[in-house]
Amino acid sequence: MKIKDYMPILEWLPSYDKRQLPGDLSAGLTVGVMLIPQGMAYAMIAGLPPIYGLYASTLPLLIYALLGTSRQLAVGPVAMVSLLTAAGVGGLAEGGTETYIALAIALALFVGLIQFLLGVFRLGFLVNFLSHPVISGFTSAAALIIGLSQLKHLLGVEIARSHHVHEIVLEAITKLGEVNWTTFAIGLGGVVLIIGAKRLHKAIPGPLLAVVFGVLLVWGMNLQEQGVKIVGEVPGGLPSFGIPQIQWTTIQDLLPIALAIALVSFMESIAVAKAIQAKHKDYKVIANQELIALGAANIGGAFLQSYPVTGGFSRTAINDQSGAKTGLASIFSASLIVLTLLFLTPLFYYLPKAILASVIMVAVFGLIDVKEAKHLWKADRSDFWMLIVTFLATLGLGIEQGIGIGVVLSLGFIIFRTSRPHIAELGQVPGTSFYRNVERFDAVLRRDDLLIIRLDAQLYFANIDFFKDRVHELMQARPYKSLRTIILNAESINAIDSTAMHALSDLIEDWRKEGLTVLITGVKGPVRDSLVKGHLIETIGKENFYMSVQEAVDGHLQDQKHTKEPSAHQLFVLQTNVEA
Amino acid sequence: MKIKDYMPILEWLPSYDKRQLPGDLSAGLTVGVMLIPQGMAYAMIAGLPPIYGLYASTLPLLIYALLGTSRQLAVGPVAMVSLLTAAGVGGLAEGGTETYIALAIALALFVGLIQFLLGVFRLGFLVNFLSHPVISGFTSAAALIIGLSQLKHLLGVEIARSHHVHEIVLEAITKLGEVNWTTFAIGLGGVVLIIGAKRLHKAIPGPLLAVVFGVLLVWGMNLQEQGVKIVGEVPGGLPSFGIPQIQWTTIQDLLPIALAIALVSFMESIAVAKAIQAKHKDYKVIANQELIALGAANIGGAFLQSYPVTGGFSRTAINDQSGAKTGLASIFSASLIVLTLLFLTPLFYYLPKAILASVIMVAVFGLIDVKEAKHLWKADRSDFWMLIVTFLATLGLGIEQGIGIGVVLSLGFIIFRTSRPHIAELGQVPGTSFYRNVERFDAVLRRDDLLIIRLDAQLYFANIDFFKDRVHELMQARPYKSLRTIILNAESINAIDSTAMHALSDLIEDWRKEGLTVLITGVKGPVRDSLVKGHLIETIGKENFYMSVQEAVDGHLQDQKHTKEPSAHQLFVLQTNVEA
Repeated sequence: MKIKDYMPILEWLPSYDKRQLPGDLSAGLTVGVMLIPQGMAYAMIAGLPPIYGLYASTLPLLIYALLGTSRQLAVGPVAMVSLLTAAGVGGLAEGGTETYIALAIALALFVGLIQFLLGVFRLGFLVNFLSHPVISGFTSAAALIIGLSQLKHLLGVEIARSHHVHEIVLEAITKLGEVNWTTFAIGLGGVVLIIGAKRLHKAIPGPLLAVVFGVLLVWGMNLQEQGVKIVGEVPGGLPSFGIPQIQWTTIQDLLPIALAIALVSFMESIAVAKAIQAKHKDYKVIANQELIALGAANIGGAFLQSYPVTGGFSRTAINDQSGAKTGLASIFSASLIVLTLLFLTPLFYYLPKAILASVIMVAVFGLIDVKEAKHLWKADRSDFWMLIVTFLATLGLGIEQGIGIGVVLSLGFIIFRTSRPHIAELGQVPGTSFYRNVERFDAVLRRDDLLIIRLDAQLYFANIDFFKDRVHELMQARPYKSLRTIILNAESINAIDSTAMHALSDLIEDWRKEGLTVLITGVKGPVRDSLVKGHLIETIGKENFYMSVQEAVDGHLQDQKHTKEPSAHQLFVLQTNVEA
Repeated sequence: MKIKDYMPILEWLPSYDKRQLPGDLSAGLTVGVMLIPQGMAYAMIAGLPPIYGLYASTLPLLIYALLGTSRQLAVGPVAMVSLLTAAGVGGLAEGGTETYIALAIALALFVGLIQFLLGVFRLGFLVNFLSHPVISGFTSAAALIIGLSQLKHLLGVEIARSHHVHEIVLEAITKLGEVNWTTFAIGLGGVVLIIGAKRLHKAIPGPLLAVVFGVLLVWGMNLQEQGVKIVGEVPGGLPSFGIPQIQWTTIQDLLPIALAIALVSFMESIAVAKAIQAKHKDYKVIANQELIALGAANIGGAFLQSYPVTGGFSRTAINDQSGAKTGLASIFSASLIVLTLLFLTPLFYYLPKAILASVIMVAVFGLIDVKEAKHLWKADRSDFWMLIVTFLATLGLGIEQGIGIGVVLSLGFIIFRTSRPHIAELGQVPGTSFYRNVERFDAVLRRDDLLIIRLDAQLYFANIDFFKDRVHELMQARPYKSLRTIILNAESINAIDSTAMHALSDLIEDWRKEGLTVLITGVKGPVRDSLVKGHLIETIGKENFYMSVQEAVDGHLQDQKHTKEPSAHQLFVLQTNVEA
């Protein structure tokens, strides 16, 4: 590893090509313009004053530009992480209070430390344990919760903060009479503006237009006097340096949510980084370095009043489409936010919260993925249920619980499936040396004195009994005393553990006592290594291993000729129905 | 399912062959004679007065004889379950008190209910998730804890009850000065007698001899006056009927340990039942019916003052060796215990506790399995560590925690291993149509324009990224722009999930954009079903699926001839070192 591997900016900055500057500049400014409304809106999701969304859009972007391996990734506040922040800190302090803010900042530090350490210890692979259906179910549920959490701002009524969708909806219904219709109209206007702008041309900054529209409308018509809630005083100036306040109890309380944020936010970030990188190919995205970069961004941010950040989906896509070629784009984005903090905060005084709510709602409702659920219903029923359970658990039990249950369920299902593996009896495809599943292929040939079995799984403690039972059944199905030889086709056995080797050794011994010959074919390298170490090669006998099923069958026939009268070798044709 | 399936006694009793009677009678009495000292000793492990070990050796045996599928299994108190009982109830009440006894009986009811329900819902397979190394590590640690818990009885000193081995050993050392040497001599005599009798002939009831020796010695020499602790007054008569006392808090406190006992005791029982059945073959052991039978035995027992029981290893072996052919043997054993309870309890007054300790110690130290650990060190290093961690966790953290950690670790390892599967590049074995791993086989042939990959695992969410990275590496290793065709040998892919199908579909699309042809060979039935449902057959194109690698290679060559100049087709021989 060279220094460049730890600090990828040294890779691209010294050889920076001036022709990349216009792209980086326009992309950086476009993303910066998006960041202003999004940052403020997402801070609101997190239960923080809007200004903290802008604070989180400064230093973390610069740190990522130094350390990140992606050249288009746009780091900053995102909806999902904001929701997780609210879920984690919400139970410990009143939203918007100083304690709450301090906890959110401490959370950024924890998240950063976890990510940094995961990266240093090269544990980036952990994120692979989040399956597609779990992510989809979780994201849809989180989007629903986020969207509904903004209902109060859109309708202009008081609704108690809750992560239980039914509570929010019920309370909203009882308060329909109190709706501030002016607020609602502004919010709806924002939604129409953002969606319309996007449809017209994806480069038009819809959210910014909505902000301008909202501010002018409220300011021009004095709508705050009609009960339209506005952002109000936004303190100007840059975030100040401060050491995050941490106590032992804070660590214990925040650890589970910090872990969830560290993994979920990394997952979101690496997914988009890899997707964008696939289009460029002039650099590589390295998972563990990404963890280090995001970790450092969160740690550094925590010292300048930032709450947890990550690489966001929509802004990264815009960054790329607007021509970003290097991390310089992010530096431009951060600079725009710095200028905003220094000079433009007074402009947000009249910004109606309903506009921020409309920004959020448009962003997150696009994340509710009904199509994937429909697809899975047809393509993979068990994955469909995984999605639904994760979705419902997230809605009903909570954000962290939802993803936890999803992960445990999806891993449990993998274990469960390998514990009841597919075991096929094979027969010869007539006139060839191919042997295929007798239940699937029409007209394959089978002999009474020969049982050919293929196990489609690693053979290990959780499925060895299942394997024994199934083979026993297949043996029982043969005419009494006709069986002479068992061929175990091991080509799909990808691993074997000590429990399975113990059992296999006993099984083969039992079979031999019954006068059966046991032949094994197609053992693969890693399994052969295990058999050598476990001394099973000696137990089974080297002469009983064959390269292919056909060779083993030839061996069996040879053996039969030598040791007894030539048997009838009656071949019979199986007439089973074959699936498509 | 017929009534006989639910009550196997109806299978063997109506057709009972009188010639089986001598075997059943002698086996039943032999096991009964073992049960007297063992039952009392194991009750002591459980923290109960010795008589409760005899109570647990009555009704449960009769119920199992009615419902159990094994005909030799000897049900009753066993060391491991007694230890688990002590671990579970010990934290809730003072050992030997009425509350303690009531809790131990309630525990039998819970264990019985759990087992019964697991059986009814056919969840017997759950026990397969306990791997050999985990069981071995757990058993060795539990045996050590049990053995050391008897040190106080063997030495005749007071040692506080603890499940932490180091605490027991340290306290024993500080109390060496207080050792009652007469007690120690009696205990040592018991150990020598039991081991000696076993060596002489396995049919000699060593523990019973030790009991007789101890009672006579203490009674004849009045050793109780020299401080030798004796069992004392043992109430005569049968256990009385009583409804187990259960409160809601009891349920919550006992549930985790009840679950652990239900599974561990079932595992011990089914393992020995299957091992013995393999020698007989005139009946079948059915896991779910065994759960129902053991469950009913525990439930019924709980109404007659019994604590949790299961099928024991050593007594079952003796039962079989002594000629047991049916459940009648167990009925004889129980009858002997009933007679003992009615008439013989006064004889146990002078029984020294050191003798019971010697019975326990000899029994459990045989369970410490150093050989397995040594074997695993050579045969399977990761299983070795699994054993060691389970062993240490059981000693250091506790009985339930130990087995819990073992199970989670062993399942986690399976997941981890499948998340980094073996991926091989294949080459042609010269002059054949076999294709083998280029890193393992000498002199296999490889072409620059052709990459043949075999993935040895199910392809799913946790390994799809690993797969993509590895294939990318292999592609990069080819001379620039030389690659034309990728052949994915799917014969070892045992399953594919929706996440993997999404990714595979994207991957193939990317490759095609680069002008590569993608061919897939040897897809197995279950995977083909998934590909059909996920519409991947259309994406990939039916014409790109081949039966074998050789056919795909032929297809590739054909294709090359048609579409471009005949390429050089340079074959080169790989000279890698091959592992044994």
